[in-house]
Amino acid sequence: MSDNKKPELANESVFVPSIPVPDDFVEVSGIDYSKDSAYNMRATDMIDSMRTMGFQASSLGKACDIIQDMRSWRGQHIDSLPEHERGGEFDSEGFQKTTIFMGFTSNLISSGLRDTLRYLVQHKMVSAIVASAGGVEEDLIKCLAPTYMGEFSLPGKGLRDQGMNRIGNLLVPNDNYCKFEEWIVPVLEKCLEEQEEAMKVAGSEGMYAGSAACWTPSKLIDRLGKEINDESSVLYWAHKNKIPIFSPALTDGSIGDMLFFHTFKASPQQFRLDIVEDIRKINSMSMEASHAGMIILGGGLIKHHICNACLMRNGADYAVYINTGQEFDGSDAGARPDEAVSWGKIKADASSVKLYADVSVVFPLIVAATFAAERPQQS
Amino acid sequence: MSDNKKPELANESVFVPSIPVPDDFVEVSGIDYSKDSAYNMRATDMIDSMRTMGFQASSLGKACDIIQDMRSWRGQHIDSLPEHERGGEFDSEGFQKTTIFMGFTSNLISSGLRDTLRYLVQHKMVSAIVASAGGVEEDLIKCLAPTYMGEFSLPGKGLRDQGMNRIGNLLVPNDNYCKFEEWIVPVLEKCLEEQEEAMKVAGSEGMYAGSAACWTPSKLIDRLGKEINDESSVLYWAHKNKIPIFSPALTDGSIGDMLFFHTFKASPQQFRLDIVEDIRKINSMSMEASHAGMIILGGGLIKHHICNACLMRNGADYAVYINTGQEFDGSDAGARPDEAVSWGKIKADASSVKLYADVSVVFPLIVAATFAAERPQQS
Amino acid sequence: MSDNKKPELANESVFVPSIPVPDDFVEVSGIDYSKDSAYNMRATDMIDSMRTMGFQASSLGKACDIIQDMRSWRGQHIDSLPEHERGGEFDSEGFQKTTIFMGFTSNLISSGLRDTLRYLVQHKMVSAIVASAGGVEEDLIKCLAPTYMGEFSLPGKGLRDQGMNRIGNLLVPNDNYCKFEEWIVPVLEKCLEEQEEAMKVAGSEGMYAGSAACWTPSKLIDRLGKEINDESSVLYWAHKNKIPIFSPALTDGSIGDMLFFHTFKASPQQFRLDIVEDIRKINSMSMEASHAGMIILGGGLIKHHICNACLMRNGADYAVYINTGQEFDGSDAGARPDEAVSWGKIKADASSVKLYADVSVVFPLIVAATFAAERPQQS
Amino acid sequence: MSDNKKPELANESVFVPSIPVPDDFVEVSGIDYSKDSAYNMRATDMIDSMRTMGFQASSLGKACDIIQDMRSWRGQHIDSLPEHERGGEFDSEGFQKTTIFMGFTSNLISSGLRDTLRYLVQHKMVSAIVASAGGVEEDLIKCLAPTYMGEFSLPGKGLRDQGMNRIGNLLVPNDNYCKFEEWIVPVLEKCLEEQEEAMKVAGSEGMYAGSAACWTPSKLIDRLGKEINDESSVLYWAHKNKIPIFSPALTDGSIGDMLFFHTFKASPQQFRLDIVEDIRKINSMSMEASHAGMIILGGGLIKHHICNACLMRNGADYAVYINTGQEFDGSDAGARPDEAVSWGKIKADASSVKLYADVSVVFPLIVAATFAAERPQQS
Repeated sequence: MSDNKKPELANESVFVPSIPVPDDFVEVSGIDYSKDSAYNMRATDMIDSMRTMGFQASSLGKACDIIQDMRSWRGQHIDSLPEHERGGEFDSEGFQKTTIFMGFTSNLISSGLRDTLRYLVQHKMVSAIVASAGGVEEDLIKCLAPTYMGEFSLPGKGLRDQGMNRIGNLLVPNDNYCKFEEWIVPVLEKCLEEQEEAMKVAGSEGMYAGSAACWTPSKLIDRLGKEINDESSVLYWAHKNKIPIFSPALTDGSIGDMLFFHTFKASPQQFRLDIVEDIRKINSMSMEASHAGMIILGGGLIKHHICNACLMRNGADYAVYINTGQEFDGSDAGARPDEAVSWGKIKADASSVKLYADVSVVFPLIVAATFAAERPQQS
Repeated sequence: MSDNKKPELANESVFVPSIPVPDDFVEVSGIDYSKDSAYNMRATDMIDSMRTMGFQASSLGKACDIIQDMRSWRGQHIDSLPEHERGGEFDSEGFQKTTIFMGFTSNLISSGLRDTLRYLVQHKMVSAIVASAGGVEEDLIKCLAPTYMGEFSLPGKGLRDQGMNRIGNLLVPNDNYCKFEEWIVPVLEKCLEEQEEAMKVAGSEGMYAGSAACWTPSKLIDRLGKEINDESSVLYWAHKNKIPIFSPALTDGSIGDMLFFHTFKASPQQFRLDIVEDIRKINSMSMEASHAGMIILGGGLIKHHICNACLMRNGADYAVYINTGQEFDGSDAGARPDEAVSWGKIKADASSVKLYADVSVVFPLIVAATFAAERPQQS
Repeated sequence: MSDNKKPELANESVFVPSIPVPDDFVEVSGIDYSKDSAYNMRATDMIDSMRTMGFQASSLGKACDIIQDMRSWRGQHIDSLPEHERGGEFDSEGFQKTTIFMGFTSNLISSGLRDTLRYLVQHKMVSAIVASAGGVEEDLIKCLAPTYMGEFSLPGKGLRDQGMNRIGNLLVPNDNYCKFEEWIVPVLEKCLEEQEEAMKVAGSEGMYAGSAACWTPSKLIDRLGKEINDESSVLYWAHKNKIPIFSPALTDGSIGDMLFFHTFKASPQQFRLDIVEDIRKINSMSMEASHAGMIILGGGLIKHHICNACLMRNGADYAVYINTGQEFDGSDAGARPDEAVSWGKIKADASSVKLYADVSVVFPLIVAATFAAERPQQS
Repeated sequence: MSDNKKPELANESVFVPSIPVPDDFVEVSGIDYSKDSAYNMRATDMIDSMRTMGFQASSLGKACDIIQDMRSWRGQHIDSLPEHERGGEFDSEGFQKTTIFMGFTSNLISSGLRDTLRYLVQHKMVSAIVASAGGVEEDLIKCLAPTYMGEFSLPGKGLRDQGMNRIGNLLVPNDNYCKFEEWIVPVLEKCLEEQEEAMKVAGSEGMYAGSAACWTPSKLIDRLGKEINDESSVLYWAHKNKIPIFSPALTDGSIGDMLFFHTFKASPQQFRLDIVEDIRKINSMSMEASHAGMIILGGGLIKHHICNACLMRNGADYAVYINTGQEFDGSDAGARPDEAVSWGKIKADASSVKLYADVSVVFPLIVAATFAAERPQQS
């Protein structure tokens, strides 16, 4: 290569001209530290700045925007609607509002986020919940005894010897599960009794749609929420506010252990939990919703279950996913919202975002800037 | 700092002496390319080299070792055992062998791994399966119509317009689900009929333990495997070989959609799926097993469900996890085997490994070097 | 298995008793929404609640605690120290304080975090910086023209045709690099001239330690900071406040492109950048520091370089890593602080944490609750 | 909702018809276990099956295809080319072939992959290498003493007390670095001597382009490869086969430590390493290449440096990335090939793939199915 002359190929490659910047382009910017609000910032100011920061900061901003949109949407007044369209959610003045499906995994209830999730349910800020089994039982157990801070690196053998169960960097004394057994066994016995009584009355029609003889996960969860009768509990407020909690694999955890033990005691009678009636129930909520929003915290069953329900209405109108899953392994946990669009689970013109983060670091901020930006009315 | 003299602090920090290398230390080494077996390598030779490569290569080697151990373990002869200890698995000569629980997520059945999973079931190489709902239905659907290769980046809107559903970089034409409906509706109708007949005979005792009147996910899956009658199917071979497939949230997918639609048609009658009987069944398998091994492909429900069942026996003896989840968010999907040790789900002295990889890139190699290292006897 | 009796094995496994909860155990808890400060929360209140939330929320709390500790530590007064121990940092009253090494990757300067990083440098809150090449040049380029918001999914071909370069979900018009060339070429020419003049004066001693004839990355970066003369720039304030910026691979980016083109124009003369003098400089800062803290944002070179420098003092006293890397592939990016302890790069008794998160979602909150919890004194 | 009638909205959403399957669609399929080649599979057979498995299995297949394409491409004969176009690589018969840039991070040399990387260099299968500093020095150190297998979970404090340095699940006794010092110091002294001598001869022109007085990282690495004179070494073969190894931040590791100590001993003389001459060298290789391919193992500097060099030729023709980085944080490590297309670093019509995996689990298989599918000719 001859010297003294800029090589043409490289020069042309490096200095490709760009088109004029379109008018609607938004400049990347950050926090303006000359403002008074930049010190010890409030959640809403922080989110305002994050919108144009890029990467997951801007996704965090977008998640807040979508949540505010799903909260503020209003449709027609109930009086203007024909009878068969009066399903779904209405605000206190009678206008249609978004049916919000919230999903969360078990670990979030084990963590301090439980207080935040409880807050949302207490103030009727969501319409239905899908939780994994642990997300149901750990809420109840926390009413009986606390969970403690630990370390991710604590060796399992030593913990087992001490009866300390590890969940990430949290520890749950195994005695908590003994206390849970004491609490739940009488409830399960009562439920079995009710099943048996209803079956005797109804006979083979006890299996019919809507029969009181057939328990389902959501019915049992509602009952547990009633029985726990504790204002710190998500289930308590869900029962109080008639917010159904779906958990189709409710046997996959400590409640399952208790039901398992119960089968021996109750034999030949057996408590049954039917999952078909619950799929009818959640799908019906989706179809009746005038607008539907999804807030999905974590992956796996709880994510797929909400998405699948929203297929029944040809897609959700709003979707916020928060998890750490990646799409490269083809898992549903890692799938972006756009994959759900291909299935009709999210509308093509919906507002959606996937925020790649551990829920615990972002959801408190999100709630502070949206649901808890203002003190709620007393309910 | 004065010049010409090595700074002491840095010198002492950098050149800390080390203890003599212990005799049992194993040197890191790789493939010896001077060997003939190094060209176009066979699976077993590759795994042999990987054991001492470090990082996930050595985890891959360890996964193969654990699988070989769980396959080769033999306990006592059945004749030497008291009646009540004759549960669990026995080899053809009557010696106890490991009960192997295998879990997989839906996407693996959608992928080409289905053939590998089917191979394991066909040759009775596993004892029980836990699958997500999609892992059940996609196996059946693939008997009716194929799944196709796509791209992770295909836009969802265009796909929805064409009726093409995306699963990672795979595409499923929506017509496949129409075909599935045609196939499954008559089966569900027959199952409902059987439920109703059994209930009429049994009355309220139709709810009793073990009653034929109560369907469970595992019973329905077994029936679907019988009905599909197709040698390419995992479910077919599971039925044939009496390998139960558990899927407690079986309504969470296309089967759930079909059951949902079926509720309208069947009303007031209703098909029921009880999940309590299934938790009794899987936990009992765990307790009866003389040794228990877990091969868990993916995360979420299927991982937790196998682990939870193994708690009933005070822990599995062998555990292989393969997934891409990370522990930092406290999710069960990302939890290392050592977290399960703290719960008693894996024994403290068990052999266990977590292999951090998309199952699709490693499981074919693992199976080639273990279950399929030799051609199986015709069965 | 006989019925009516809880199976012993399962019973004993599930209900293992736990030791009494130690007195120093900390209960997991979340936000108390009955408090007034729970609405539209301030950063410090949010961090207070996160400390006991678990998972990465508690890591986030710990990161803030460590940063506050490294900021508030004070050692001896300078007057009480012998001459040769008067290196390192001192506060305005003459007491030893922590030398803080901050590292960041290029993308963070491209994002809106640049304003936050600039704020830290402007107010002398850090002592030295290690940046990748892009982290240097993008700061300068942003003084010439803005970066814009884009999408992760924008197709590369269309962007190249428009001369729009994508960085995650950001877009940089290629014209920005043309403007950068115009700006930097005269500076490089001046620098070459100075090299040549100094060499003429010094002869072969121009290669000697400390010679003005030899440019290094940190010297060039300081000069660029002076020349850009723009208060929005990190480099400007680093120059102003005598905070060295190290970037050993400074040629790996647009500055490298410019230097490459410059070699043709300048030939046979050639501008040189020596990296040996810079390793002496950063290592010396580490050895002289009375206490050393690391704040490392992202992975790769910038992480390793700071850790390696801290080996020279037998380990940092404080370490905060924030990145999304995982340890399973044995990469330095994914290594936990405890790996650095084994090397002597972090002291065994140091305070350290790795926060698993995209820097953009957590660093604004961290800075708001620490460095910017109060308005800084005017400087 | 009235019963007995399938709800229309749900029905239409679920059973959206799909377009006829296009003729060029490829069915997902897996391993055909009825074939003899399915047992203890060979690498090429496994890769053949993986191409249509989906997820990362198909990316693995594609990576092999791209590597085979870059290896087999041939252009014009050298005799038909004008003098100034006779740069780049030619096969033994004089036809143009692809210039292959391979990048790897330090940890891969620490792992058993070093043997695989050495194999590629020994047989001239790559044209140039970019390595991080550790990727250079660990290759040399392994000629002096071995690295050992460890565990990811070994506590750092105990290891430091024993002088055992951890790299993921590998251990390097610190004595290895003492041995390295003994070996490298005389080499560095010789190099400094040569610098001084050349400077005396050349005077200020010793700084001129191409002067022997100025060492660069690639020149020093070549010299170290010559001096180590060990057939197990990557550097040895790189020297032997004139394959340049670039490492612009060569001071970022043990070599940097040694150079740092050397500055004290050598003062006032000082060994210099110029990085400008090296950027000219790698960019020139890129511009001269008739076709360019990238094989990038890991992320960070080594990934960006190869991509940036390929911008000088308006993009690589082939690109294989293998790493575990994710795009969501906007890091270059996690960027997909399509981001590089926007910058002109990969051609818009190039073949490219990103394989999401720890290199150690996939690269042995890739090499076995490509570079080592056949025994190479003796060289």
